Amino acid sequence: MEYPEKLVITEVGPRDGFQSLKKWIDTSIKVDVVRKLFHAGVPRMEIASFISPKAIPQMSDGEEVVAGQKIQDMDRAVGLAANVKGARRAWECGIRTLTFVISASEAHNLSNVKKTRDQSIQELAQIREAFPEMGIKLSLATAFGCPFEGEVKDQEICYVIDKAIAYGVTEICLCDTIGSAVPSQVRHVVDTIQEVYEGKAILWSLHLHNTRGLAAANTIVAMQRGLRRFETAVAGLGGCPFAPGASGNMATEDLVYMAHRMGIETGINLMELLEISEYIHEQLGCRVDGRINMKTVHLVQ
Amino acid sequence: MEYPEKLVITEVGPRDGFQSLKKWIDTSIKVDVVRKLFHAGVPRMEIASFISPKAIPQMSDGEEVVAGQKIQDMDRAVGLAANVKGARRAWECGIRTLTFVISASEAHNLSNVKKTRDQSIQELAQIREAFPEMGIKLSLATAFGCPFEGEVKDQEICYVIDKAIAYGVTEICLCDTIGSAVPSQVRHVVDTIQEVYEGKAILWSLHLHNTRGLAAANTIVAMQRGLRRFETAVAGLGGCPFAPGASGNMATEDLVYMAHRMGIETGINLMELLEISEYIHEQLGCRVDGRINMKTVHLVQ
Repeated sequence: MEYPEKLVITEVGPRDGFQSLKKWIDTSIKVDVVRKLFHAGVPRMEIASFISPKAIPQMSDGEEVVAGQKIQDMDRAVGLAANVKGARRAWECGIRTLTFVISASEAHNLSNVKKTRDQSIQELAQIREAFPEMGIKLSLATAFGCPFEGEVKDQEICYVIDKAIAYGVTEICLCDTIGSAVPSQVRHVVDTIQEVYEGKAILWSLHLHNTRGLAAANTIVAMQRGLRRFETAVAGLGGCPFAPGASGNMATEDLVYMAHRMGIETGINLMELLEISEYIHEQLGCRVDGRINMKTVHLVQ
Repeated sequence: MEYPEKLVITEVGPRDGFQSLKKWIDTSIKVDVVRKLFHAGVPRMEIASFISPKAIPQMSDGEEVVAGQKIQDMDRAVGLAANVKGARRAWECGIRTLTFVISASEAHNLSNVKKTRDQSIQELAQIREAFPEMGIKLSLATAFGCPFEGEVKDQEICYVIDKAIAYGVTEICLCDTIGSAVPSQVRHVVDTIQEVYEGKAILWSLHLHNTRGLAAANTIVAMQRGLRRFETAVAGLGGCPFAPGASGNMATEDLVYMAHRMGIETGINLMELLEISEYIHEQLGCRVDGRINMKTVHLVQ
């Protein structure tokens, strides 16, 4: 079997997507979108950020977004925090899995969180100590290229991964923050980390941006190399406010469409997802960057 | 070696692209774009159509476009014709390789050229007889899906290919006219035709539309299965005037970028190509559907 039978998709639109929109989004819309996405069957979702409101004011209502969700959906919820203070906010409102971002390249980490990578790793260690029962997913930004440093070497990737594993992280997402990965590179990086960390109980996933139109091609190659966990954003929302030129994530609907057409399960209702994508477009006026919509989802017109 | 060392790209923007634009494009702009594309190094290009001006008035100036080219570039030029009359126009102005389109699905052939597939094959036979020295590339439309019939069976594809080979065609391009192909399907079709026609001296190529965002992924899989000839359009121009919902071809700049980043040669100067894409956008005001541009071509901002 060349491809996995089932993908595990983490929807990141309500976090990575909404944080990249400059304007304020009403909490009620955020709550709505997250509820609709849970209803559509996303197996996992980054639903809120617990970042300083000074840094990203449009995400200051994380607790309220969480409070708007059904309790039974919360085991699928993930929150993002950058320090112990944010982790506490997340924990106290009911988040049990945290995304913590460190960049593979020092320059992007400094730009993104105003810390060196080593300082970020210390922050991670403090979160682990303060909240030992919190699951932590390391999102390794710029793993396939940095807007300041260009190509990122394997040893830079492994430098951060080694330390994260030493501090007990068991889930690592390789992020193509600026959408610069090409298929041969994805194969190389995926093969390398699977070889270097063979025998370690790590859940590996990929977070691909479609800046250069290669997210689907990169996903195909990653699946061929055994990966089945991917992060995508409904409507292709996203970008990185601190990475010049980064455009949207791979659209969840595009990945779900491709998977279903290839006989790969996702557990997600594609038609519901397309309705959510339209809803976001109508409510927020932002461009839908996915290619699959009510028209293209059907072959026969 | 997983991927070919070199691709042979046929640029189809000046034909497939321009014919899908409704408004008249000045002959001088057409001439200019073709000259610039030859200069950028495209190894092959569909530069004009020789179709009835009643059917596609905006392509009525094929002879003038050809006359505007340098003689030494003409061995890279391809023209499109749908009947003996068109083939004669092409031959008389200096075209020596012809694209002849037949759809794998009967319904699309009827919609596209108002003929059954058998009638089209007879037309092909007449062209062969009238111009025995003309090279003919069969473009097999709707090979991966039809806007009227949906999925297209292998035997429908082979039905047309068998007859085309019987009439001496040695080059066949499988066209995803409505951009509905998915990677597993591309693998299946490419493997099937390579198996069925093993030992026949046929040049196989793929023509992929990016309607559902999968052109690059489909290209990757086709390359893995040994194909190295692809048709693309600068600026992602294109579509099919007689296929509802079909959007642009894969952008040449996107394929060239991906190939070069993967160490695969194309012989095309990417920066020149990006300038041509911008020129088309400025001159014609049409949306550039490629992802690679002067900003995204660089990793470091």
